Amino acid sequence: MSKLTLDEIEQRMLRFPDWEYYEDAIHAEFEFENFKDCFSAMSRIAFECEALNHHPNWSNVYNVLTITLFTHSANGVTKKDFDLAEAIESIVEPEE
Amino acid sequence: MSKLTLDEIEQRMLRFPDWEYYEDAIHAEFEFENFKDCFSAMSRIAFECEALNHHPNWSNVYNVLTITLFTHSANGVTKKDFDLAEAIESIVEPEE
Repeated sequence: MSKLTLDEIEQRMLRFPDWEYYEDAIHAEFEFENFKDCFSAMSRIAFECEALNHHPNWSNVYNVLTITLFTHSANGVTKKDFDLAEAIESIVEPEE
Repeated sequence: MSKLTLDEIEQRMLRFPDWEYYEDAIHAEFEFENFKDCFSAMSRIAFECEALNHHPNWSNVYNVLTITLFTHSANGVTKKDFDLAEAIESIVEPEE
């Protein structure tokens, strides 16, 4: 899995308006009604992470979930990160 | 719920060797076999948080869980933080 070029990343970012690219990683923050809703989304995301065998750096404070994705072995952002970002989007914003 | 004094915190810390006190909060890091084990512990902790109506600042990277506890409304550490720390200990280190 090789690191995407800046061009490839910027192209993909157009489809991920909730995400920002900086410091060789993509980042998003999601806000929920409360802790239960937030942790429920985290649980669903956790299953996707296992399925994709790719795991986030993520933090939670009450109703806020902060996620950073990058591919350690590639020292940057790869297709795996966008695959996981897409899975995350389908969980946190199912209406889209 | 009032902020504990430094003496009261230091007294309580003796029972929590996994935890450190600094910057008006108590902190611990736990390592698990893998992501599944780590997230399973997080799920059990999440239920305790709801039961105690007290929530952590926590982060996860693969098999590592980092937790910071403090009481926002008291601007420091209170009994609630040690109650949650105790619940967390009983989940992550059930053999003790």
